[in-house]
Amino acid sequence: MAITSRATDYSQWYLDVAKSGDLFEYSPTPGCITFLPKSVTMWTRIQKAMQEKLDRLGVQNVYLPMLVPMSFFEREKDHVEGFAPELAVVTIGGGKTLEEPLAIRPTSELLFCDFFKDKLQSYRDLPMLYNQWVSVLRWEKRTRPFLRTAEFYWQEGHTLHENRPQADAFALDILWKVYIETIEDVMAIGGIAGRKSSSEKFAGADTTYTFEPMMSNGWALQICTSHLLGQGFMEGFGVNYQDRDGALTHPWYTSWGLSTRSIGGIISSHSDDRGLIIPPKMSEFQAVILPLFTKENTEAIGEYARQIARLIVGETASEVPVHGEYFRALVGAGGKVELDLRDARLGEKITDWEISGYPIRIECGERDRQAGKCVIASRITGEKSIVTLDEVVATVSRMNEEGQAKLLADSRRRLEENTVACFGMEDIGNAIEAGKFAICEWDQDPEFEKEIKEKFKATTRCIPFEGQFTDELLPLTKEGTVRVVVARSF
Amino acid sequence: MAITSRATDYSQWYLDVAKSGDLFEYSPTPGCITFLPKSVTMWTRIQKAMQEKLDRLGVQNVYLPMLVPMSFFEREKDHVEGFAPELAVVTIGGGKTLEEPLAIRPTSELLFCDFFKDKLQSYRDLPMLYNQWVSVLRWEKRTRPFLRTAEFYWQEGHTLHENRPQADAFALDILWKVYIETIEDVMAIGGIAGRKSSSEKFAGADTTYTFEPMMSNGWALQICTSHLLGQGFMEGFGVNYQDRDGALTHPWYTSWGLSTRSIGGIISSHSDDRGLIIPPKMSEFQAVILPLFTKENTEAIGEYARQIARLIVGETASEVPVHGEYFRALVGAGGKVELDLRDARLGEKITDWEISGYPIRIECGERDRQAGKCVIASRITGEKSIVTLDEVVATVSRMNEEGQAKLLADSRRRLEENTVACFGMEDIGNAIEAGKFAICEWDQDPEFEKEIKEKFKATTRCIPFEGQFTDELLPLTKEGTVRVVVARSF
Repeated sequence: MAITSRATDYSQWYLDVAKSGDLFEYSPTPGCITFLPKSVTMWTRIQKAMQEKLDRLGVQNVYLPMLVPMSFFEREKDHVEGFAPELAVVTIGGGKTLEEPLAIRPTSELLFCDFFKDKLQSYRDLPMLYNQWVSVLRWEKRTRPFLRTAEFYWQEGHTLHENRPQADAFALDILWKVYIETIEDVMAIGGIAGRKSSSEKFAGADTTYTFEPMMSNGWALQICTSHLLGQGFMEGFGVNYQDRDGALTHPWYTSWGLSTRSIGGIISSHSDDRGLIIPPKMSEFQAVILPLFTKENTEAIGEYARQIARLIVGETASEVPVHGEYFRALVGAGGKVELDLRDARLGEKITDWEISGYPIRIECGERDRQAGKCVIASRITGEKSIVTLDEVVATVSRMNEEGQAKLLADSRRRLEENTVACFGMEDIGNAIEAGKFAICEWDQDPEFEKEIKEKFKATTRCIPFEGQFTDELLPLTKEGTVRVVVARSF
Repeated sequence: MAITSRATDYSQWYLDVAKSGDLFEYSPTPGCITFLPKSVTMWTRIQKAMQEKLDRLGVQNVYLPMLVPMSFFEREKDHVEGFAPELAVVTIGGGKTLEEPLAIRPTSELLFCDFFKDKLQSYRDLPMLYNQWVSVLRWEKRTRPFLRTAEFYWQEGHTLHENRPQADAFALDILWKVYIETIEDVMAIGGIAGRKSSSEKFAGADTTYTFEPMMSNGWALQICTSHLLGQGFMEGFGVNYQDRDGALTHPWYTSWGLSTRSIGGIISSHSDDRGLIIPPKMSEFQAVILPLFTKENTEAIGEYARQIARLIVGETASEVPVHGEYFRALVGAGGKVELDLRDARLGEKITDWEISGYPIRIECGERDRQAGKCVIASRITGEKSIVTLDEVVATVSRMNEEGQAKLLADSRRRLEENTVACFGMEDIGNAIEAGKFAICEWDQDPEFEKEIKEKFKATTRCIPFEGQFTDELLPLTKEGTVRVVVARSF
């Protein structure tokens, strides 16, 4: 399929890239998609990177049920207002109408509060640090694969602490040490860290922290948030503990989530008019080998391609089908390499590899075989090198590292070059229309947010923490004001 | 809490072991439980072991939606009869009554068929090998933690093949190379492999393969099944492809699943009257260290305990909370070790460690510290050894290996010793009442199955493959008969 150019129609470009890159299929279930193996692999890589960091913080995984009794939604006023319109409700179970309907979780604060209530007794039980990797469902009318779907996968962390400073520090640890590290290091996406304004924070939260990356059309995408929820939920559910002085006290609650929306962020951030680009750390295959067959030497060239693959993934690799008859993979201790065994022209194989988004291709034909060489090319840096067999492993590894680094550097540069200081509504309007982030000084009056929404369909994305490039971009001039980033968002 | 003895009340013993072992909490959602970190870790270990094997077979992971349009259930007659009574049905979405209700998946054959329909074109696309790790929901009235709950986690594999022999071989590969290897090697549970009778096979299947272990009360537990589904579903959904001769043909379909019921199997198989026993390969902690503090040397003994822990998990380990103030863990490249830092008597710490089910404890007090030694004991073999620090790593590793091997050997011996050849209803009744598996010669008349159900509340569990201990136990005497295993089951 042809890919619409990004300049022509950004939305269509996004869909074309994701569809031709074999990341999803449309589904007969309203608002939902099928995640194909490539996007599941991306999510698995994100999980692995985050899980290691969560382990190091002492966070433990649990599974709470997917169904939440409807009466629970009455216990936290802001929360029910935020989520009630998005619920999918089970009213029939085992052939009978249920006395109490059950909602599919849109998020699990309510069940976690009930869980904590029985679990928590004394300050000695704190902190309680739990997480679950599950899917959630929020009824959506307008959907866009990965970026906005009714059901999506995420992790949701829920923790209790003795006091506000400890809870706040933990919510920030999650933002910086788990989310931002994973987003920058694995997804290769830069962004601005900060807190949400009062009107943009999570339903029921005291403070919401966020990391806002810029997609390649200049829109923001909320990938992750970390909330200091405070004590409101604890009051609603009667969660309390005996503190160090023997008094009954509410603990301080944090919750935080990062979802498969991030896959939409990866698609949008890195891809180009030729198709998908997958960051090397998220790619199932370290390389895709494109043997160029001649009639006389089909077998020898196929064996040469496998020999190159085994250099990368190890001698004892197994050969397995990937899709169809001609796409196979060698899987070994050293990883996975794909083989495109079609008897097609090199140009066709290269085009399909480009669409596939895998970071590295290796070409090998009869001349290469006789010379003991192959061609290695990077989808990301554009480098193309002819190397001998003993240079293959080091070259693939170097190109993957350089590709990963370039994607992050490009993403950060785009963000910094396209965030502009604004001094008034006209400036903001111009910046938004030009597909940029506007940053301006703000007295935190919510009227401003109504105005930018009406005029430009934009929202405040975050109030950046100090210590980022935004400090220099816009020095503050008045007492009691903050910097705020304004943008359109997915 | 006190653990009811197994001989007194098996069901209560099972609940006490699982509850005191911190594997689950009861939930306000009907029929569901909360999986606590220890059971989630067990499931993660099972996933990891199986995923490596699935990768080697070329199976790829996808995520299909959790909701299935109700009309899909009409397309396969046997399937709808099997699952309709167990459905949880969403009738309201986003505040409105849905035109077409949606069922929470009880299993995903129907959505996979729809998915395959668009994906499959030519014989060149075969085999198609997909799997997903998700939870499913089947409305249950009588539940038992892990063994039977409304929502449970599993993997469900769905594959298409060109012909019956290839599909059949794949369903058997899954049974032997993925399921049985994982169940024996990781869960340390023995069982009998075979096929289900016509009346016990999966709703809509041609053949169902199974592996039936014996729990410690002599009941069977169905942990996993692998189905040759044939072409029935393909006809219902119009899934077909152009075969090698250019004709439109239905592919052959397999599906297969292994669920968190297996955690119930682990609890029941290995535990004793003192509490839970976790197979070493499924344990989060390689060892639990119980320092015995004296008033004068609290700090030095604590440091000595950490020194021992670092021997096992590596010098650069981080210390994290596990639960409460006194249970902490060292987490490093070499794994995880728990520290019980309570200022309690050794006896109390040992009892709590026994209940916890972790395979190895290490005791260290002031005298041990001065001698540069510690006591290492196995929950499984009962061995207790005093070792010097340079012997710690090898001793822990050896005891874990021996413990793992003993659990499997015990499980297999119990199965073999308690499976008895029967020649008539009276024999069968005696065997079942004595908590044994009955094996008998069978002409495959379903009337027999009605009779054993009415008389003994027992079912046929499987028709064993040849090549197992069952061959010798019951030589067949008549033409056209099979061996069949009869038992009560969870």
